[in-house]
Amino acid sequence: MTTKYAVGIDIGATNFRMGVVSSEGKILNRHLAEVGRERKPDDVVRLLATHIAAFKKEWPDIRGVGVGFSGIVDEKEGIVYKSPHYPDWVDVKLKELLFDTFGLKVELDNDANLVAIGEGWQGAGKGLENFLMVTLGTGIGGGIICNGKIWRGDRGFAGEIGHILVDFNGPKCECGSHGCWEMYASATGIRQLVRDSGDAQKKKFLAAIKCDPERITPLIMYNMAKEGDIFASVIWKKFGAYLGAGIASLVNASGIMNVVIGGGVSRAWELFITEAKKELGKRTYKKTASMVKLLKATLGDDAGILGGAASILR
Amino acid sequence: MTTKYAVGIDIGATNFRMGVVSSEGKILNRHLAEVGRERKPDDVVRLLATHIAAFKKEWPDIRGVGVGFSGIVDEKEGIVYKSPHYPDWVDVKLKELLFDTFGLKVELDNDANLVAIGEGWQGAGKGLENFLMVTLGTGIGGGIICNGKIWRGDRGFAGEIGHILVDFNGPKCECGSHGCWEMYASATGIRQLVRDSGDAQKKKFLAAIKCDPERITPLIMYNMAKEGDIFASVIWKKFGAYLGAGIASLVNASGIMNVVIGGGVSRAWELFITEAKKELGKRTYKKTASMVKLLKATLGDDAGILGGAASILR
Repeated sequence: MTTKYAVGIDIGATNFRMGVVSSEGKILNRHLAEVGRERKPDDVVRLLATHIAAFKKEWPDIRGVGVGFSGIVDEKEGIVYKSPHYPDWVDVKLKELLFDTFGLKVELDNDANLVAIGEGWQGAGKGLENFLMVTLGTGIGGGIICNGKIWRGDRGFAGEIGHILVDFNGPKCECGSHGCWEMYASATGIRQLVRDSGDAQKKKFLAAIKCDPERITPLIMYNMAKEGDIFASVIWKKFGAYLGAGIASLVNASGIMNVVIGGGVSRAWELFITEAKKELGKRTYKKTASMVKLLKATLGDDAGILGGAASILR
Repeated sequence: MTTKYAVGIDIGATNFRMGVVSSEGKILNRHLAEVGRERKPDDVVRLLATHIAAFKKEWPDIRGVGVGFSGIVDEKEGIVYKSPHYPDWVDVKLKELLFDTFGLKVELDNDANLVAIGEGWQGAGKGLENFLMVTLGTGIGGGIICNGKIWRGDRGFAGEIGHILVDFNGPKCECGSHGCWEMYASATGIRQLVRDSGDAQKKKFLAAIKCDPERITPLIMYNMAKEGDIFASVIWKKFGAYLGAGIASLVNASGIMNVVIGGGVSRAWELFITEAKKELGKRTYKKTASMVKLLKATLGDDAGILGGAASILR
C-alpha cells in the first residue's frame, strides 16, 4: 500500500494548528499560525491558503484537507452555524469556500469530534471499539466513539457533554442553563470553585498569588498546588470529584467503559485523578466501577490535526 | 410471508405479563400471573411453564420465548446477575433453565430494553432510527435505540439513566450515589419532592389525604391535582422540571432528538409535560430545543411483551 497524505487543521480561538499527515498516522510537518483580529471568513480562508500552498509544494499529492472548528458545525453540509470565538460567522459555507480556494477535497467537523477521532486513531483510544472523549479546556468538549466511529446523533449535535447537569440550582452557564458540568470541571469551573469556596485558606491564597480571582488559571492553581499550597490542592480535589461525578452520569447512561481525558487542564492529572476515581466509584454500581477505565489522552495538541487528516485518509 | 408466532414475557416485581405475539406485531392472547412469595428460580420457571404449555396448545408452532427481567442481566450469556425484586437470584442461568424446560428458543434481556424495543416496533418509536426510552416507575428505567437497534454499551449495562446526576449534594439513592435523577422524577422522586417541600400548603394537603407521607403514590397525587389541590399541582410541576432537566442532559450528550416517555407515572402526562418542555428549553441550545420531541409511549404494559417477542421474531 502506498502512503497517502492529507492536511489536518485545528482552528482554535487564538491559533490555527496545521500539519501534513501520512496514512500511517505520522505528522510530517507542523505549522502554527496566530489568528489576528481580522477573523472574518475571508480572512481565515486567506490565511489557511498560504499554509496549504506551502504544504502542497513539498507534498504535491496531498489528498485533501480536514478542518476542525469549535462551534456548531453541520458536518454533512460543511457549514459553520455559529462559533463562540468567531462571532461574525453565521451559517458560513466553509467547506465550499475552502474547496474553491484549495481545489482539494475538504472535510469539516466539530473540533471535539476530531480530537476523539485522532485519539482513537493514534492515541489513548487506539483499538477501542467504544470510548468517551472528555476534553478539559475553557469548558468541557466531548466526542463519543461507537463501534469505531464518531457518534453524531440525529443532527450532528451529539457530544455536548459540558452541558450535562451536575447541580439543578448551580451557577449560571454561558449556554443559558444552570449547574452544567463545565461550571465545575474545566478552567471556567476552577474559577467557580474558588469563588464558591468558603475555605479559611482562601484569603491567604489570594494574597499569595497576587492575582484577580477572576483571572485565576489552571496553570496558577497547578503551580501553587505543586508548591504545597493546601487551598490549591483542595480545589483540585473538588475538581476531581466533580469530574468523576459527571463521568459517572455518562457511563451510567451510555454503558461505555473507557473514558479518554485530554485538553489543557488534564495536565494537572495527578492532582485530581484519585478523587475522580473515588467519586466515580460512589456513583456507579460496583460491577460498573470495576470495569471503567480513565485513560490519559496521549496526543495533546496533535489530536485535532490527526483527526482532521483521518477524515480524509480513513 | 407466513405469519410466525412467539411468546413475550415481562417478569415484574409482582406480576408476570405474558402474551403470544404474531410477526405482524399483534398480541393474540394475554396471560397475567401474580408472583407469590415463592420466587426462587425453580418456582418462577415452574409458573412460566404452565402458561407456555397453554400457549403451545393453541399455537403449536411458537418459535420461541423472549423474556424481560428487571435487574442486571447478561443478555449474551442469558444470566441474571442480580435483581432488586428477586433477592435470592444471584448469577442464575435463566436462559438455560427455560430452554431445558420449554424446548424452545429463549432470549433474555433487561426489561427496560425490551420496553424500548417494543415501543420501537409497534409504539411511539415506530419508524425512528434513534430514540431514548424513559420509563417512569418506582425509579427511572431507560433504553437507547441507535440505528434501529438497542444500544448496550461495552458490557450490556447501557441505559441506567435513572442514575444520571441531577444534584451533586442531593438525597441518597438506593444505588449508593446522591442526587440521582430517579430521586426526583419517579414514584420515589414524588415522595422525595413532598418530603423536601417547604410549601405552606403541605400541612393542609397531608391532612386532606389522611395518608402517611411515606406512602404517597403517584395516583394519590394525580387524583388530588385533578381535584384542584394546589400543593399536588406544584409537586407535579416540580416533577416536570426535573424530568425536563434530566432529558436535557441525555439529549445534550447523545444528540438523540426523540424521547419516548412511558411507565405508570407517565399517566399524569398533562400535569407535568408543559413544565418538562419549558425546563428542557432552558437547558439545551435553541437549535436543539426546537428539534427535540417528547413522545408519549403508546403501548403501556404491552411494550415489554412485544419487545420480548420481537427478540425472537425480528
